[in-house]
Amino acid sequence: MDFTHSERAQDLLQRLTQFHEQEVAPAEEPYLRELMDRDDPWVVLPVIEELKAKAKALGLWNLFLPDATLGAGLKNVEYAPLAEQMGRSIIASEISNCSAPDTGNMEVLHLFGSDEQKDRWLTPLLAGEIRSAFCMTEPDVASSDATNMEARATIDGDEVVLDGRKWWSTGIGHPNCEVLIYMALTDPDADRYHRHSMVVVPRDTPGVNVERMLPAMNFLDAPGGHGEVSFTDVRLPVENIIGGPGQAFTIAQARLGPGRVHHCMRLIGLAEMALELACRRGTSRIAFGKPIANLGGNRERIADARIAINQARLLVLQAAWMIDERHPDMLNAVSQIKVAVPNMAQQVIDMAIQLHGGGGMSNDFPLAGAWAVARSLRLADGPDEVHRGVIARLELAKYGAGKWSPPAKG
Amino acid sequence: MDFTHSERAQDLLQRLTQFHEQEVAPAEEPYLRELMDRDDPWVVLPVIEELKAKAKALGLWNLFLPDATLGAGLKNVEYAPLAEQMGRSIIASEISNCSAPDTGNMEVLHLFGSDEQKDRWLTPLLAGEIRSAFCMTEPDVASSDATNMEARATIDGDEVVLDGRKWWSTGIGHPNCEVLIYMALTDPDADRYHRHSMVVVPRDTPGVNVERMLPAMNFLDAPGGHGEVSFTDVRLPVENIIGGPGQAFTIAQARLGPGRVHHCMRLIGLAEMALELACRRGTSRIAFGKPIANLGGNRERIADARIAINQARLLVLQAAWMIDERHPDMLNAVSQIKVAVPNMAQQVIDMAIQLHGGGGMSNDFPLAGAWAVARSLRLADGPDEVHRGVIARLELAKYGAGKWSPPAKG
Amino acid sequence: MDFTHSERAQDLLQRLTQFHEQEVAPAEEPYLRELMDRDDPWVVLPVIEELKAKAKALGLWNLFLPDATLGAGLKNVEYAPLAEQMGRSIIASEISNCSAPDTGNMEVLHLFGSDEQKDRWLTPLLAGEIRSAFCMTEPDVASSDATNMEARATIDGDEVVLDGRKWWSTGIGHPNCEVLIYMALTDPDADRYHRHSMVVVPRDTPGVNVERMLPAMNFLDAPGGHGEVSFTDVRLPVENIIGGPGQAFTIAQARLGPGRVHHCMRLIGLAEMALELACRRGTSRIAFGKPIANLGGNRERIADARIAINQARLLVLQAAWMIDERHPDMLNAVSQIKVAVPNMAQQVIDMAIQLHGGGGMSNDFPLAGAWAVARSLRLADGPDEVHRGVIARLELAKYGAGKWSPPAKG
Amino acid sequence: MDFTHSERAQDLLQRLTQFHEQEVAPAEEPYLRELMDRDDPWVVLPVIEELKAKAKALGLWNLFLPDATLGAGLKNVEYAPLAEQMGRSIIASEISNCSAPDTGNMEVLHLFGSDEQKDRWLTPLLAGEIRSAFCMTEPDVASSDATNMEARATIDGDEVVLDGRKWWSTGIGHPNCEVLIYMALTDPDADRYHRHSMVVVPRDTPGVNVERMLPAMNFLDAPGGHGEVSFTDVRLPVENIIGGPGQAFTIAQARLGPGRVHHCMRLIGLAEMALELACRRGTSRIAFGKPIANLGGNRERIADARIAINQARLLVLQAAWMIDERHPDMLNAVSQIKVAVPNMAQQVIDMAIQLHGGGGMSNDFPLAGAWAVARSLRLADGPDEVHRGVIARLELAKYGAGKWSPPAKG
Repeated sequence: MDFTHSERAQDLLQRLTQFHEQEVAPAEEPYLRELMDRDDPWVVLPVIEELKAKAKALGLWNLFLPDATLGAGLKNVEYAPLAEQMGRSIIASEISNCSAPDTGNMEVLHLFGSDEQKDRWLTPLLAGEIRSAFCMTEPDVASSDATNMEARATIDGDEVVLDGRKWWSTGIGHPNCEVLIYMALTDPDADRYHRHSMVVVPRDTPGVNVERMLPAMNFLDAPGGHGEVSFTDVRLPVENIIGGPGQAFTIAQARLGPGRVHHCMRLIGLAEMALELACRRGTSRIAFGKPIANLGGNRERIADARIAINQARLLVLQAAWMIDERHPDMLNAVSQIKVAVPNMAQQVIDMAIQLHGGGGMSNDFPLAGAWAVARSLRLADGPDEVHRGVIARLELAKYGAGKWSPPAKG
Repeated sequence: MDFTHSERAQDLLQRLTQFHEQEVAPAEEPYLRELMDRDDPWVVLPVIEELKAKAKALGLWNLFLPDATLGAGLKNVEYAPLAEQMGRSIIASEISNCSAPDTGNMEVLHLFGSDEQKDRWLTPLLAGEIRSAFCMTEPDVASSDATNMEARATIDGDEVVLDGRKWWSTGIGHPNCEVLIYMALTDPDADRYHRHSMVVVPRDTPGVNVERMLPAMNFLDAPGGHGEVSFTDVRLPVENIIGGPGQAFTIAQARLGPGRVHHCMRLIGLAEMALELACRRGTSRIAFGKPIANLGGNRERIADARIAINQARLLVLQAAWMIDERHPDMLNAVSQIKVAVPNMAQQVIDMAIQLHGGGGMSNDFPLAGAWAVARSLRLADGPDEVHRGVIARLELAKYGAGKWSPPAKG
Repeated sequence: MDFTHSERAQDLLQRLTQFHEQEVAPAEEPYLRELMDRDDPWVVLPVIEELKAKAKALGLWNLFLPDATLGAGLKNVEYAPLAEQMGRSIIASEISNCSAPDTGNMEVLHLFGSDEQKDRWLTPLLAGEIRSAFCMTEPDVASSDATNMEARATIDGDEVVLDGRKWWSTGIGHPNCEVLIYMALTDPDADRYHRHSMVVVPRDTPGVNVERMLPAMNFLDAPGGHGEVSFTDVRLPVENIIGGPGQAFTIAQARLGPGRVHHCMRLIGLAEMALELACRRGTSRIAFGKPIANLGGNRERIADARIAINQARLLVLQAAWMIDERHPDMLNAVSQIKVAVPNMAQQVIDMAIQLHGGGGMSNDFPLAGAWAVARSLRLADGPDEVHRGVIARLELAKYGAGKWSPPAKG
Repeated sequence: MDFTHSERAQDLLQRLTQFHEQEVAPAEEPYLRELMDRDDPWVVLPVIEELKAKAKALGLWNLFLPDATLGAGLKNVEYAPLAEQMGRSIIASEISNCSAPDTGNMEVLHLFGSDEQKDRWLTPLLAGEIRSAFCMTEPDVASSDATNMEARATIDGDEVVLDGRKWWSTGIGHPNCEVLIYMALTDPDADRYHRHSMVVVPRDTPGVNVERMLPAMNFLDAPGGHGEVSFTDVRLPVENIIGGPGQAFTIAQARLGPGRVHHCMRLIGLAEMALELACRRGTSRIAFGKPIANLGGNRERIADARIAINQARLLVLQAAWMIDERHPDMLNAVSQIKVAVPNMAQQVIDMAIQLHGGGGMSNDFPLAGAWAVARSLRLADGPDEVHRGVIARLELAKYGAGKWSPPAKG
């Protein structure tokens, strides 16, 4: 048992942190202010591309990709501290080409894409030249049960025809978003987990329409955002189905595992940022003759936040390590962090908001925005309740629970 | 002991509910949509004035004011179910001229204002012709300790000169906002609770400047909103000081008591609305072959929400009754509801959001906005921690705790 | 709406409190110490009978019984503050002949018993001359589902024959326990709620055997205690069935409602006692140069306890009032307090234990014992989860949830 | 980063688990029953010595001691899974000579004892021939602040004279307890952390009197138990002071660190045991036509327990590793687990009790006893609040909080 990060991870972390402190942090506030002041926030401001170029030059690029040729070749457990560091900032992930949903989409194309799909989409995505979106959740059904999905990807000769409506398609608002991955029902008669397909959809295909951009807790999250997207008689070559028809659940499983771990890694950083702000505010602001950290239960809350973050980080690191090791219990571990981490982050950030008083609710601090991110992740990629269900099923199965069925009546 | 509302309260509640169902509810969604779609939301749309006229005609007007000549003449405990009913909606309070901060400001003028102040400001406020703001919290100090206040209201001959900066001045964005009540330091040498004054400030007085409108959890709450307001050498006749110099704490105490109770009453309604939505969603949406209410711990959460709301309502009703009865423990009771109710509402609404999935975070349902309201009220009018401090002090005082002081050293 | 207790309740409360302070409290600690020091604690020490005689003489007797001839004739809402006051002490309920399970058993006999049953059992119970037990829960099945019950009460000619095993039969260890009420299955073919009967069983009937006394969180709760009792071919006249065969669910419903309310009333008093001890300890014990109440989050915890108790008390009072008024939602209210109050009490007492340090876990303070009582009541008379189920069902039924059934397959 | 246990730890764990399953588990229930049925439980029943001999023969002995000559020579992080495994049982730690307070006392003697002290006390302790007690906490002061300590260890020529009263002296009731380590004030004029001494006290020294055995949540924890012990003019050679006068805080720090980690390791095992019982009960008991695990929120609670245990275990492992590595933040880590783990265990066990219904509160399952152990450890070795204070102080110190002091008055 060894809790030390690899030398490589330590080195990258040190360089990434330095880059963030020297380049990203000073640029972030002016950037966000400019974005908020614009009538049209669906833009890429020049500073983003400048910082991306710097990150690429410094080798702080595509850190998420385990493939050593195309990406940084890091294990998940090595990537974790880097993702945490990026998670402290709203823009740092994008600067290093490590932001959702691109990372997941790149992994899908890397693992399951055809050579042509790789050439056309993966290469520019890895270069940070284009962005992408992922279209899975639907407005009209409970998406917590993926088998509910009603959108269609019907095979018609050598074409696949897309019809349906998706929402929470993250990234669709980005000016550089040029490609979508769309998941839908192909064969209702196949078995439950082989009915659906994933299709690569060029953003400008006729019939693809962004109906509106959705606020999440009233944040539009521009310029990426979350869209409601309709697909009306969208026709594409059948080759655009990734890995062939009926493979969507297999691919989704592969995509969502690391994606969830990445989200959780970043949330650890977000929670750390909130705790740091709480401590700084708590020691610099005076009320009733004392720094407010010394009032009431504030110190206990700070201690509880420290404990909660540390526990959650270790659970994430272990889950990442289990993925690296192909540990048989890794999916259970991913569900566990998916429950534990967003809830922890939501609570820590809420505490930090409270300690900031009215300022904590304003946009003078990044706390309101951070809270919305954490809150969203209790729903995105499977709500808490679904993951708790997975964990409980696996726990009970140790004692034979899977075998029970209700007694026959009569 | 009798848990029945008075006949008058029941009658008004029945009529108010009917008015809401028939007139307000159908108008609310289109109104909010129109407001959100506008570039400039700082407007009064015609539907609001139409509904106000109807409410006035029906006698559903100024329900908050205990004075029977100027208002409805209800006891607080009678007003409670009406405020709860209005709290279910974003606009209903305004329609019945019962929205913060006007209610508190009207009470201040009613109780402490001069005849001239009443003529000039109270009369049009009661008529719903103008709106008002309350300027107390400051950006640069921890306002949880009101004695921290740094803004000035200096007496200079027969003038009072205002200098300082306030924020979270709710209502300042409203086109009809014509008057501000400003609280500031007048005499630093007076005893702790007689240093401050409250001043009536016409909105258009030179030197009053709204620096910006503040988002609360990214909601601007237009058209009223929350402003950051600077006061620079604002000169007014000394008669504009309400009740004379040094009376601000006395007045604030009188103002904030009922104000907090009103907020809590409305939050009960907001939580009920959220629970209703959760139940409706939970019974109409299907996942894994069942209505989602029947999955996992959802039913237990619904039960816990029902219990939490009922307990909180009773505590609010009792606090209102204690104010009506001038009960000696009434300030303790107000602090108790100020802690209990916003926390309860925040949790119930968060649960409802979770049950709605992604939709719960969007603005397709009023839940994200409701959450922001409940969250704000854990800070507005005194943060949880300050009120817990009051409650604990009173509790410990029963056992002589007030008497302890640290032993003399040496 | 009126939160004042009736004059009668106030008068009784004042007299009861005085009696407790002057007579019961001074006797309680020596009594408990003597009981704990005995090898055989299954005894009635003389002080108990002395205090009972005094209570009877003062009219502080049978306060629970709504019947004005046989008991005090109080409404439930009037009895509540008296039960709360008794709940502060371990022995006060017994002193006033108001302790479980006798109160419930007396109500059953009063409401459903034959004249002969009343003469033989109710009269001496009301006189405090004998005690009783209630035998419902079974060791071998999940008793949360009462229809699981396996014990038998089979009619054989003019006899009813009892066979089965019960546990958590509270009061069975008491030397004066002379009568049991036993609930069991009579007719498996009847509809679900008419299969069971309640039988009056003289304690010394052949075949009734107390197998062992059960500790609850290691407290034996002598001299009443909780027994595991076997019934082997116990034969009694069929007249011993209360209200006739198949009436057990009807009777249980009537019995458990007020019984649960009484438990909750007493728990309010227990929690108040714990909070008082916490405040006294917190203000008298010094650590790090301050009274421990002033350290860390202790004051916030005291405030939260105050709020929690007050909310719970109001919910109990309202439930009691609803029973008095035969309010249609009264069973819902009883389930709500049955969840809310024991959980609240468990938490408040746990907080008080923590504030007492090691002493809190010892028997030098009544906190460990109080905790065990509160903990038990999260299971006794229906576990939390069953009551939450009831509440959720009723809540969802408002929106038509009762009507949903799974779609027909094929 | 590597989450695999060393081969040595894995091997020992496998052998220890096998030994527990084959030898300890079958013996435990009959042993506990016999102990409970005895009038005098302060005995060593033969089975204990038999199992100790077997463990010693198998090399499953003194596993806690990092010294490879005298003990197993394991790192703390290697010992962790073994301590967890022992923690599942009430007797397993004793069987392997790894039970508190002996482990801590042996470490003190090993690290700070004179050769004579080692010969006389450490050797037979390591052999499992004698037991020991640790006398630190006092009844009359808040022991959470160790500097409060009032007991005396006064140097009088070549003697040290002990006067004072201690309680919660764990192990003092054991028939084999032959030695006490006593901590008390020697020099009130020395600096705060050099006033106290630790003294080795033979159990039979005149003036040492066990006043009573204390129940913890009504468990006596025989045959070791927890005593209240008076020391009256107890005279011993000054050489009995371990490490010389004034060294007690230094020694306590060394003693309590690993001791707290061991407690936490064992609690992980206790919580796992409780969760296993909950799952077994939840899948085998039927109510309302389903295994009770499938009712209400039970599955979610099981999932939450799994997450909570896993997080806590990782935090303990990391703390153990930090001690092994002499990591500068190790004391912070120890405080963190000391808060997190007992609270987690208390909650998990409470959940398991609830799922067992009445049985969970009885002694038919080890849950009530386990709960009492977990509850005790929120107080023993420093209450939650003190450890939270340490954590918060260190957290805030990162941002300069240590430097703040109240402004000079005048």
